[in-house]
Amino acid sequence: MSATVVEIVKSKNLKQKPNDDKLGFGKYFTDHMFVMDYTSEKGWIQPKITPYEPISLDPAAVIFHYGQTVFEGMKAYRTSDNKILLFRPDENFKRLNMSSERLAMPPVNEEEVLEYLKQLINVEKDWVPTAEGTSLYIRPFIIATEAFLGLAASKQYKLVMILSPVGSYYTGGIKPVSIKVEEHYTRAVRGGTGMAKTAGNYCATFNAQTKATSEGFTQVLWLDAIEKKYVEEVGTSNAFFKVNGEVITPELSGSILPGITRKSVIEMLKDWGVPVTERKVSIEEIFQYHKEGTLEEVFSTGTAAVISSIGELEWNGQKITVNNNKIGDLSQKLYDTLTGIQTGKIADPYNWTTEVK
Amino acid sequence: MSATVVEIVKSKNLKQKPNDDKLGFGKYFTDHMFVMDYTSEKGWIQPKITPYEPISLDPAAVIFHYGQTVFEGMKAYRTSDNKILLFRPDENFKRLNMSSERLAMPPVNEEEVLEYLKQLINVEKDWVPTAEGTSLYIRPFIIATEAFLGLAASKQYKLVMILSPVGSYYTGGIKPVSIKVEEHYTRAVRGGTGMAKTAGNYCATFNAQTKATSEGFTQVLWLDAIEKKYVEEVGTSNAFFKVNGEVITPELSGSILPGITRKSVIEMLKDWGVPVTERKVSIEEIFQYHKEGTLEEVFSTGTAAVISSIGELEWNGQKITVNNNKIGDLSQKLYDTLTGIQTGKIADPYNWTTEVK
Ligand SMILES: Cc1ncc(COP(=O)(O)O)c(C=O)c1O
Ligand SMILES: Cc1ncc(COP(=O)(O)O)c(C=O)c1O
Repeated sequence: MSATVVEIVKSKNLKQKPNDDKLGFGKYFTDHMFVMDYTSEKGWIQPKITPYEPISLDPAAVIFHYGQTVFEGMKAYRTSDNKILLFRPDENFKRLNMSSERLAMPPVNEEEVLEYLKQLINVEKDWVPTAEGTSLYIRPFIIATEAFLGLAASKQYKLVMILSPVGSYYTGGIKPVSIKVEEHYTRAVRGGTGMAKTAGNYCATFNAQTKATSEGFTQVLWLDAIEKKYVEEVGTSNAFFKVNGEVITPELSGSILPGITRKSVIEMLKDWGVPVTERKVSIEEIFQYHKEGTLEEVFSTGTAAVISSIGELEWNGQKITVNNNKIGDLSQKLYDTLTGIQTGKIADPYNWTTEVK
Repeated sequence: MSATVVEIVKSKNLKQKPNDDKLGFGKYFTDHMFVMDYTSEKGWIQPKITPYEPISLDPAAVIFHYGQTVFEGMKAYRTSDNKILLFRPDENFKRLNMSSERLAMPPVNEEEVLEYLKQLINVEKDWVPTAEGTSLYIRPFIIATEAFLGLAASKQYKLVMILSPVGSYYTGGIKPVSIKVEEHYTRAVRGGTGMAKTAGNYCATFNAQTKATSEGFTQVLWLDAIEKKYVEEVGTSNAFFKVNGEVITPELSGSILPGITRKSVIEMLKDWGVPVTERKVSIEEIFQYHKEGTLEEVFSTGTAAVISSIGELEWNGQKITVNNNKIGDLSQKLYDTLTGIQTGKIADPYNWTTEVK
């Protein structure tokens, strides 16, 4: 299906683009954004590309008080022959709608919004950076805008898509990170909102993250909230363990975000004939495998870093080192293949990429 | 301590005030609001009373993506001799700071912000409604405003206070409500944000609330997320059970909001010599008391309805009726005393009210 071409209001003040080596993450934004409004009477209306500009909301808007909002995160990559590729964007809009369902928010037409995104990227195509490892990060989000303090789902929403050129996570190869198992704070629990990409899940982690950083760790590993026993996620990425040739990842329990990188990794491993199992896996079990010498690789997956190698893991005062604190062969192969497909360097046998024309 | 008198920018377009019988909850807002900004370099700066007007934020503001925000809810009451009283506002600003701590946000100076609030109410004193049961609802909130998509606490915030004249919860006496124990969804879990008044806790409840309403219930009763066994809260109010002359309320477990009405009720009961216990209490136990004929009253407490009488309780397909679906004597006495103190009708032996002069 092909969506209507949206109204485009061009910015009259184009920004100076930052250098590719200064990008960092989520600091710079392009000249334009996409906006579309929702009312319960009319549905989604007035899709528009406008200059990147402040959002103006009534102080009583539901987003400020009851946090009704969902978001997504994905990337556009520039290929060496100057094409622009998106990686499984259909999966992101599908997950956006899943998140919205949990938050009592209206769904969008996934195909239509993807079309709008492509039109936005087309307007901003010069903003897709070129240096190795860089990309254009895409942040669609929906916020509840009705001015009403009653405790009920908003009747008005705004969908916004903004774009941010982002730098390379890795300069000079992947360096394994040091992770700490979080014992006190919890990220999510069954029956809660952990499976949805919604704002409240993220601010809830800032204290734990700050504590971990001050103790010299890169991230925390979250355990389930109920038994404080089973591995859930690593920061905002999904956890994988290679044990004796088999890859194990926590099953989607209802409190874990169903990562698209996670899904892609599972599909690739199956395709390669590597045994991969989604199941409950306890942190005790992982430490036991290490003791027995069968814990071969630990890594996590997510849009930001694609594959992140985990070299050290601390739990309960014990610290283990995985694969001599070096990235494992399988982690490296997954990283190379995934980023190869994303940037058009290697063939895409799974049909995961979509060109923005 | 006395805070600086804030800068006041008066609105040039005063609104027409709604009739006291049309107020409802959180639909109308007064002519002015209070705003104050925070930067990590300068702290809280530029306290100001301005016309009630839209808040303009960068689309990348942290509040829209990671939901870093806290809020409070309290009321100003008009007495029959035309004074305006606040009820334990110091407790609200203390809780605001407790919430901020959990959300990795900077504290405010509690006394100073209370002074600012009084100045705001003074400007808006004609908005405090007069009819029986009405009041001026006060909503202070802090939102994270830095334009940065990295996962970290914002370095910039905005504190806003808005005012809304609200109607009576009860016209013609308290009518007991029908409550359903929620089995699937959870509100909060230990290690999470349940003890903080933060947006993400509230949107997470919309689906459960909608389902309960469609099944003919007023509210849900939340169980603990871990064992799905212990009573936590009723909607957004704290639960109390009168059993054989003793009052039982769930202890502050870390996932329950420490209600100020709850605290006041406990203090009053102690003062009256009514035995009151804060402890874990399971829903099974409550149903057992009912079977034995010792469950005398069930009620919940919160700023909105003060005391809400619970006449029916459904759990696991069983429905029990409490006190013949009539408000109990103790619930009524608590309601009369609390609202009497709040509105200056009876003496305030606890020094809970503060006049806005
Ligand atoms: C909580 C959480 N888990 C996992 C992920 C990884 O998901 P994806 O691979 O789709 O980026 C993300 C980030 O996107 C996340 O926010
Ligand atoms: C989750 C929750 N529980 C309990 C309460 C009751 O607290 P208070 O008595 O301070 O209004 C509130 C509302 O304020 C609330 O939001």
